[in-house]
Amino acid sequence: MTHPLFEKHRGTLDAALNAIATRGYWSAYPEMPSPKLYGETATDDGKRAFEAHLGKPFELNQPGQTGWHGGEASPYGATLGVTYPVCDHEALIAAGLEAMKGWQTVGAEGRTGICLEILDRLNKQSFEIAHAVMMTTGQGWMMAFQAGAPHAQDRGLESVVYAWREQSFVPAEATWEKPQGKNPALVMKKHFQIVGRGIGLVVGCGTFPTWNTYPGLFAALATGNAVIVKPHSNAILPAAITVRTIRAVLAENGIDPDLVSLCVAEKRATTQALATHPAVKSVDFTGSNVFGQWLIDNSRQAQVYAELAGVNNIVIDSTDSYKAMLGNLAFTLSLYSGQMCTTSQALFVPAGGIETEDGHKSYDEFCADLAKAIERFLSKPEVAHAVLGAIQSADTFERIDLANSGALGKVVLASSSLENPDFPNAKVRTPVLLSCDAGDEKLYMEERFGPISFIVKVADTAAGIALSERVVSTHGALTVGVYSTRQDVIDAMTEATWRSKVALSINLTSGVFVNQSAAYSDYHGTGGNPAANASYADSAFVANRFRVVQRRYHA
Amino acid sequence: MTHPLFEKHRGTLDAALNAIATRGYWSAYPEMPSPKLYGETATDDGKRAFEAHLGKPFELNQPGQTGWHGGEASPYGATLGVTYPVCDHEALIAAGLEAMKGWQTVGAEGRTGICLEILDRLNKQSFEIAHAVMMTTGQGWMMAFQAGAPHAQDRGLESVVYAWREQSFVPAEATWEKPQGKNPALVMKKHFQIVGRGIGLVVGCGTFPTWNTYPGLFAALATGNAVIVKPHSNAILPAAITVRTIRAVLAENGIDPDLVSLCVAEKRATTQALATHPAVKSVDFTGSNVFGQWLIDNSRQAQVYAELAGVNNIVIDSTDSYKAMLGNLAFTLSLYSGQMCTTSQALFVPAGGIETEDGHKSYDEFCADLAKAIERFLSKPEVAHAVLGAIQSADTFERIDLANSGALGKVVLASSSLENPDFPNAKVRTPVLLSCDAGDEKLYMEERFGPISFIVKVADTAAGIALSERVVSTHGALTVGVYSTRQDVIDAMTEATWRSKVALSINLTSGVFVNQSAAYSDYHGTGGNPAANASYADSAFVANRFRVVQRRYHA
Repeated sequence: MTHPLFEKHRGTLDAALNAIATRGYWSAYPEMPSPKLYGETATDDGKRAFEAHLGKPFELNQPGQTGWHGGEASPYGATLGVTYPVCDHEALIAAGLEAMKGWQTVGAEGRTGICLEILDRLNKQSFEIAHAVMMTTGQGWMMAFQAGAPHAQDRGLESVVYAWREQSFVPAEATWEKPQGKNPALVMKKHFQIVGRGIGLVVGCGTFPTWNTYPGLFAALATGNAVIVKPHSNAILPAAITVRTIRAVLAENGIDPDLVSLCVAEKRATTQALATHPAVKSVDFTGSNVFGQWLIDNSRQAQVYAELAGVNNIVIDSTDSYKAMLGNLAFTLSLYSGQMCTTSQALFVPAGGIETEDGHKSYDEFCADLAKAIERFLSKPEVAHAVLGAIQSADTFERIDLANSGALGKVVLASSSLENPDFPNAKVRTPVLLSCDAGDEKLYMEERFGPISFIVKVADTAAGIALSERVVSTHGALTVGVYSTRQDVIDAMTEATWRSKVALSINLTSGVFVNQSAAYSDYHGTGGNPAANASYADSAFVANRFRVVQRRYHA
Repeated sequence: MTHPLFEKHRGTLDAALNAIATRGYWSAYPEMPSPKLYGETATDDGKRAFEAHLGKPFELNQPGQTGWHGGEASPYGATLGVTYPVCDHEALIAAGLEAMKGWQTVGAEGRTGICLEILDRLNKQSFEIAHAVMMTTGQGWMMAFQAGAPHAQDRGLESVVYAWREQSFVPAEATWEKPQGKNPALVMKKHFQIVGRGIGLVVGCGTFPTWNTYPGLFAALATGNAVIVKPHSNAILPAAITVRTIRAVLAENGIDPDLVSLCVAEKRATTQALATHPAVKSVDFTGSNVFGQWLIDNSRQAQVYAELAGVNNIVIDSTDSYKAMLGNLAFTLSLYSGQMCTTSQALFVPAGGIETEDGHKSYDEFCADLAKAIERFLSKPEVAHAVLGAIQSADTFERIDLANSGALGKVVLASSSLENPDFPNAKVRTPVLLSCDAGDEKLYMEERFGPISFIVKVADTAAGIALSERVVSTHGALTVGVYSTRQDVIDAMTEATWRSKVALSINLTSGVFVNQSAAYSDYHGTGGNPAANASYADSAFVANRFRVVQRRYHA
């Protein structure tokens, strides 16, 4: 008997299966915040739903509640004033383990159907969630909508469909019949039960509280595990809305809602206790190397899927579209003030300059032209604010100031403050562009999160490719790029990325950017360099989150 | 252009794919050492091929050779006198990494075809390998043939086909076309390259030098990695024959044979240096908890797939086939003198005895009856020697003596020495059966590898099931069993195994035994309890051994 929600969403599932197999363009959830797609009143309804949370306690009815905690401050100014239940983490674990029984019983079809229903419901809340993402992270509206809602939902669905592909390959039962020559065959009946491993802990980040959380959340959930979401202390609301909706859909479908809970941890010690708890069998994490490495070193009882820091970079050799290249780079370096794990931090440019369709450009000319391209791109305030958003953390501020001071290299373009007329207290800063020599490794060879990029002078293109490979292999990267009109350069860069295991974008000049990663088509991270030990999403991201327990007897 | 070896073995691959999807009985390699199946002269040829190795250096033409090392002593008496190349492990790593380039270029189809050709060639050497396995491990002939050759080859093929399933799901390229309303679509061309992670280190064990080695070897190889096989110091020959054949097939197909090499390590420090080398990205290990835990703690740069010790157990509640049950248990406890990672070590029997079709049997009667069943089963010397084989290690000898002394519990059946007329110096010992109370945990709750089993007196069946779950959860197990005529007992045991994550055999009385695991059908280990962190073979066993590196550009 097929689960009704599996039947209901079967078309979406099949289309998603086809998408991950063919990796062309596909999306289950419309990325345009259009009334035609989301309903005439969706914009206003979503805004009101978001505003209704402000200044109030956010009820979740979780077990073991001991108090309330909030304190989110918006990068756009003002505090949200929402408080969230603080629950004893042991109570959340115990309740999650208990709820896993029913979740196992409903089977892979039931779990898949319910996960798809959850995503569908989250999609209907896209405006509400987008506002929550925007106001907690400082993203611009359009990015908050797209990355925070439909794109995050797509990434969640991608995990669910990979999980379905692996689970559905395991037959529920089999008859094993071994011929015995003239004697009767040996016949065994076998049953194969898919069981979750335990609690999946998902630790969110402050910049992409849904996009970086949904893959692990849905991968763990779809494969039969309970999930505890530990959000970043300044981006709780998007996670809380998500968890509330999940709990509602679970309850509607006869599953104990305590299967998924929110853990607002007032102290890091709570997160550490969770991460090292024997019942926690997977940890999904996006964030700093310091805590990520702590998890890898200490969460030894769990599978840790970690996305850490990296030094994304681009080798610039030559181009036949100089202006378009600069425009593409200007957008990449400006988008969300570079507060993306995919933003390019280092551009490797030959000391002798580059060839373009517009003639030779010296290293210094390239620096000046890129600075101008950024200034030009951000010259209209409405564009600048839509693209830049606001600065999410005080640490990023400090890094910008340090870069502006000249302490990290020669300032090619200084960061400046902008006033956002809609949000007078918003913390808006334009990108800072620095130049330095390849030998100044201590400057550019660690992640400097935020709108801080280095134009690194390398001996020649070959040296740039070699440096890119070394940076990726030793410090990690989620993205690299190359600009060249020469096939041998592109081939050499391609082979370098095979060795260093990083995704490569080649000669991007129009509406696709090195820092963007499309669900079902682009692997976000390879899992093969220090920036991430897993990829969103592939078989390896889901296959080890469940185990198969068999039983057999003579038939 | 499809690789010719992929075409040649396509039928086998498709049949294996069907087998892992349906998990019925299937085998690619005949398990009967019959002249009809393997050729009229196969028996003699194989024996001669084995004997031709004895007393000679085993040439492999590997890089960095510094000397020769041997010293294998057969549990059947006599030394083999074979010496093997000792090679600088850095040279093996460097050569392996270099060879990976061509291995990547040949693609998943080429790798799969070549792996299938290798397995086919190994199958043709089954008699030679069986003799090598028998004489190094002490297995009886039939087991050495079946487990050492065709069954091991099946396990290797199972890894290859799982690896193929995952790799073939990744398209080589895609066109990503995103509609832009009235504007022209954004079109990107994308390529997806499968790359191996690096060196796969496979550490063999002394009792199953091929069966436990081939899954990891072929999983790593098929997914694009170089492999270094580090055999157990007393079971080198089966691994050396395997590696030589692999190198020959690679060379015949234009692949640098240094892709796969044998590392005979004279010191543990060499193995440790290999296991912690930055180029080593996976470690497959079967063996003791001490070294296995060392690997898990120290090989942090690698994925570690480890099969460790466990306490396999059986809950005995009731039966309607008392004699057949005792016979089945007697075989299990005797086979290869219990030197299997799947042999039952603890039988949990209610203090009040059990119900049978032959009336109630008290705990003491059960003990006596099982002892008699073992004695009866081993009463014919030719049967006893065929089943028992010989004792592989001095440590196992010591454990048997300790058990015989009464220090580990009351001796229900003492182990005795048998003389093998074919091998006068063979070290043959019958099983020792002990009884103890459930409270005597220190006696039975650690692995006592070899023919040593405990009949543990438990309060009742429910207590036995609870104890089984606790033993598996805390100490691990690859197999558990239950005998009961009551469905509620079977259900309770089934649910306990879902929680403790261990494979369950129910009421085995005829020609299938709890310690046997059939390729393509039985998962060997669940990967979910302390006895093993992975299963032979499933998606999780292969999916993280390769990574996908993409590149994209405007089309």
